[in-house]
Parts: sequence; structure tokens; C-alpha cells
Amino acid sequence: MKAKAVAYTGNRSLRIGESVPVAPGAGEVRLDVGYCGVCGTDMHIFHGNMDQRVKMPQIIGHEVSGTVAELGSGVQGLKVGDTVAVRPLQFGAPTTFDNGHAHVGKNLKFIGIDLPGGMQASWTVPAYTLHKLPASLSLQHGAMIEPAAVACHDVRLGQVKSGEFCVVIGGGPIGLLIALVAKSKGATVLLSEINDARLALTESLGIIVVNPLKQDLVEAVRQHTAGAMADCVFEVSGSAPGVQAMTELSRARGRIVMVAIHPQPKPVSLFKFFWSELQLIGARLYEAEDFQEAIALAAAGRLSLDRLITQVSPIEEAQRVFEGIDARPDGIKTLIQCSN
Amino acid sequence: MKAKAVAYTGNRSLRIGESVPVAPGAGEVRLDVGYCGVCGTDMHIFHGNMDQRVKMPQIIGHEVSGTVAELGSGVQGLKVGDTVAVRPLQFGAPTTFDNGHAHVGKNLKFIGIDLPGGMQASWTVPAYTLHKLPASLSLQHGAMIEPAAVACHDVRLGQVKSGEFCVVIGGGPIGLLIALVAKSKGATVLLSEINDARLALTESLGIIVVNPLKQDLVEAVRQHTAGAMADCVFEVSGSAPGVQAMTELSRARGRIVMVAIHPQPKPVSLFKFFWSELQLIGARLYEAEDFQEAIALAAAGRLSLDRLITQVSPIEEAQRVFEGIDARPDGIKTLIQCSN
Repeated sequence: MKAKAVAYTGNRSLRIGESVPVAPGAGEVRLDVGYCGVCGTDMHIFHGNMDQRVKMPQIIGHEVSGTVAELGSGVQGLKVGDTVAVRPLQFGAPTTFDNGHAHVGKNLKFIGIDLPGGMQASWTVPAYTLHKLPASLSLQHGAMIEPAAVACHDVRLGQVKSGEFCVVIGGGPIGLLIALVAKSKGATVLLSEINDARLALTESLGIIVVNPLKQDLVEAVRQHTAGAMADCVFEVSGSAPGVQAMTELSRARGRIVMVAIHPQPKPVSLFKFFWSELQLIGARLYEAEDFQEAIALAAAGRLSLDRLITQVSPIEEAQRVFEGIDARPDGIKTLIQCSN
Repeated sequence: MKAKAVAYTGNRSLRIGESVPVAPGAGEVRLDVGYCGVCGTDMHIFHGNMDQRVKMPQIIGHEVSGTVAELGSGVQGLKVGDTVAVRPLQFGAPTTFDNGHAHVGKNLKFIGIDLPGGMQASWTVPAYTLHKLPASLSLQHGAMIEPAAVACHDVRLGQVKSGEFCVVIGGGPIGLLIALVAKSKGATVLLSEINDARLALTESLGIIVVNPLKQDLVEAVRQHTAGAMADCVFEVSGSAPGVQAMTELSRARGRIVMVAIHPQPKPVSLFKFFWSELQLIGARLYEAEDFQEAIALAAAGRLSLDRLITQVSPIEEAQRVFEGIDARPDGIKTLIQCSN
């Protein structure tokens, strides 16, 4: 297979071009990319919603597994042939605003949006972005580590503990992974989603499910908790009904993790935050420890990754794959095979 | 002075009646009330905003200092003549929703709203509501312990640490006390308020002040922090501009404490919570430890209580006092002298 790359060129168009290997500089590593997942963010780019941020043509993709092909000078702890997942964050100069939190730093660049991404056969990235995969983890599962790390970050910031009751609002890939990570902590998890195919999959993974268009979500949580309501709620839907529900679902001192992107301000019941001392916890991306946890959970078989991978398609078909995702909201995760 | 009581009878009317001593039952204590502060909540009751909750005629008042006059059976750790502050919470039967947080429990009754209050000469309350005052603390200062405990609770939940920069939006009694408690933790505090008399008082207490109608609040915080912005923001204004500002004032992983009551949902920039991993922390009332801290800070002279007490008026003048508070938004705290 000739080395190929997927570049977004604007207006729902992807161009399949050549992936040009870039010799790794000091502290960099060149990867042979295995698989690259298609993220909701890639779909946003495809739809033109991020044209102000993305320089065209731009090679996209940031949910990447690969094999170390070439090491730049000074790179330690990695060798050619190691399989890795990529944490696609290029840290910029720290600012006082960041307060030491580099992953949400003002000068952060996201690799695959702000810089060339991994939907290509050969990709050169900073060595500090790489997390070694155990031999037992396939490259397909390795491409799921990035979204799984998002879920680990969300659950960690939500301080989910064994025995707690969690509600996840929204059952796309991230919502489903959050549910599975929370379950791995010993929590009971209920997921709210309006797509019946996704609900069926979710239920088969041991998660309680509710379709809020068919059932009263607040009442369902009340019944499942005998009135206690939820210890932790994850708002992953990005919807106004999700924002309204999140405060109604929380018990006293409950935590609400804001995972979804809400571009416009939405009405929030600040009274409920006051009255029951709720907490809202914003959660974005991940830190290194979240990748480590995601790899450990995946290697232990706790994330049912085979069930979450809806399809795997060759890189040449990227245009058709993106159009297909738009047409079929039932799917969870599509992987692009970038090299063999 | 004959023993008197102030009862709200509806329609901005207070009736001065007789305070009838109630013999303390088991676990109860009868107090000779010293002073009772007028809270914003008392003003809400006076204005008729809480007529659905308050049974009329109702003796109001919950910011109380007093002297132990009579002990019911089984009361330990108190003796006649002790001076005390009252934590006016009657805990109800716990529910699973409460999750052990009795002060925000579903069956909590607030003494002075849901039950007869302390704006009277003689008052009988559960012994567990009482906090002994040190001999060095006057009864006037003792009546300031309840609002100071609110501030201690807010600052504690906001996890304010030495060296941090805090912004308090709203400079009434609670906002001012929050500023002073945060300052006592070693934080630098900026308070935003639109009343110039309150600003002058606040500034004289070592707090940075901004009038957001005359100065850009976000820019002011940016300048005072050299771009870092605030570690902790307290929204005490109850205003839409306050809610808008709170997310703009916070640095990465900043905490926002929701102190104010916002009866209606307000638009909130959930995107900023996501993007900079902000936290919103609802804070209501207080717990026992907050009273202990308030008493310690007051006794150590850290709360400038003499400066916060705008006037002290005899109980007979309650109607005129309440009308005067409406007419004069400059004041901070008015105390009602309830017995000699």
C-alpha cells in the first residue's frame, strides 16, 4: 500500500494524498501509523464548523496507534518496533493563567487540529506524546486509547467511587466509554441516549439505559436509586435538555462533570447548585495519567473495545467513510487503517 | 423593658408583641436574646417574597446572640449565664438524598423562617444549635457570628489558600465577610460592588475594590493578577452580570462559589467550564465547624465587626428599622437589641 494521507480541503471534502515521511528532529519520533479513529471533532472539521481554526489543506486525525519507525536524537525509553498510542497535545510556553495545568494551557496546540494529524501512514510527533502499549494490546485497540483517556479524565475529575450511582447523559463513543470506566470503578451506571441502536449496545454491556424521549429520566433515576438520586452526572450530550436534567438528577453535594461542548451559554439552574451544594466540574482532554489508566483498563479487557469499534476502513475510503458516519448515527467508532 | 417579639404579619408589616418564655423541653435551652441581626432574608420576608413559606404571624430573625437562661433536661456542656451564638438549623429526619449532609437535608427546617425566630427577648431552641462565645466577645459581635459562619463556609468550600487571588462579586454583608475571611487565609481579595459607600468601607478594610459600572472588572482583575486571573470567585450578587463575569474572571481550574440565590435559571458559559476546567461549587448555610471558625476569627479581631455594624436599634423600632434599610442601601448590618 502506497503511503497515503487524508487532508481536509474544506466544504466536506477530504483529499487522499501522499504521506511524506518527516525525519524526526531532536526529541521527536517518526511512527508508522496503524489506525486512526474518526472523532466527533473530525466530523466537525469535515462539516466546516472549524474552518476558522483549521489551516487547509490539513491532515486531520488524532486517535492514533502506531509503531515506532525512527527515533530522533535524545529520545529515551522507546525503540524501533514499539507500539504506542499518541497523546496529541503539543504544550506551548506556560502562562500564569494556566496555573501549571498544561493540558488546558493558553498556548496548547492540539495535534490533528492545529498541527498535522495522524490520519496518514507516516507521522512525526514529539516523543513526550507517546505512551507505550503492552504487547497484548492490538493496534486497533490502541487507536481507542485516546477517547478512552478522555473518559478516564472525566471519571477521575468526577471522583467516582465504588458503590456510587452515576448518570451519563449522551451515549456516543465518549459517553459509552465514560460509562464503562465508571463501571470499572465499581459504580452503578445509567446512560441516557435517544438512539435505540446505541441503547441496545449499551445495555448489552451491563449499563442501565433510558431513552428520555420514551421515559422520564428523572423518575427513572429516582426509582433506580430509591430516591437518593445520582452521586455523579456526566453531561456529554451538548443539548439543552441535558443541561436541564443534570441538576435535577443530582443528590445533595452531587458532582456534575461538564464533558460536552456547549458553544453558546445555556440556562442553568444556579439555584439547585446553591440549594443542594452541587458541584460543576469542567473536564477537557486528558493528562498523562489518564492515558496510562486507559491503557491499563484496555489491556485488562474492561472497555469492551471490540464492541465499540463499528467498522474499520482503508484510508483510501475516507471520504465515503465520513459521509457514511453522517448518514448512520447508530455507529460508535470508525477506525481508518493507515498502514498495514 | 417588657419582653417583646417582632412578628411578620404580611404586607411589609411587623407587629411588636409580647415574647412569651417557653420552658425548655428535653435537650432544649431557653435564651435571653441579646441582639438579632437583620438579614437579607428577613427583608425578603418583609417584602412578601416568602409568604408561601412563612406562616403568619411569624416571629422572624436568625442572627442571634444570647445568654443561657434555663436548661432543659439532659443538656450538657452549657450553664446558665453562658453567652452563645445560635446556628438556626433544626435537622429533620435524614434522607438518602441528603447523603449525610444534614445542613442541606430535605427535611431541614430553618429556625426564624420555618419556625419561630430570635427577634424576641426570650427564645427556646435545641441545645445542639448553640455555640459558646468566649468572654471576650460582646453580644453585639456574637450576633454577627451567623453571617460570618456563612462566609467561613463559602471560603472553606472554595478551598481558598494563602497567596491566592480571590474576587467577590457583590459587597453586602455576606460579600464583605467573605472578603475578610478569605483575607484571613492569606489571599489577596478584590471586591466588586456598585454602591460607592460600601466600596469606601470595603477599601478601608484592606480589600481591593472595583465599581463595575465605572471600571471594566475583567480588565481590573487581569491587571491586578498580571494576566493570571482569579483562583477563586464568589458570586454573591445574584445578578446576571455577576454570572457572566464569574467565568471570565477565573484562571485555569479556577473555583467559582455560588453563594447568591438565583431564583430563575440564568445563561452560563458552560464552554468556559469545559475549556479551562473551571469548577462551580454551590454553597448554602453552614456546618458546625464554620461557626467555630467564625467565633475564632471574630475573637481574634479579624473580621472588623465594629465597622460592619451600621446601627443598633431597640426592638420597638423594628418596623421603622426595616423601612430604613429599604431606603438606605449604603448600610451593612443592622442589629436589633432584643433585651436590655
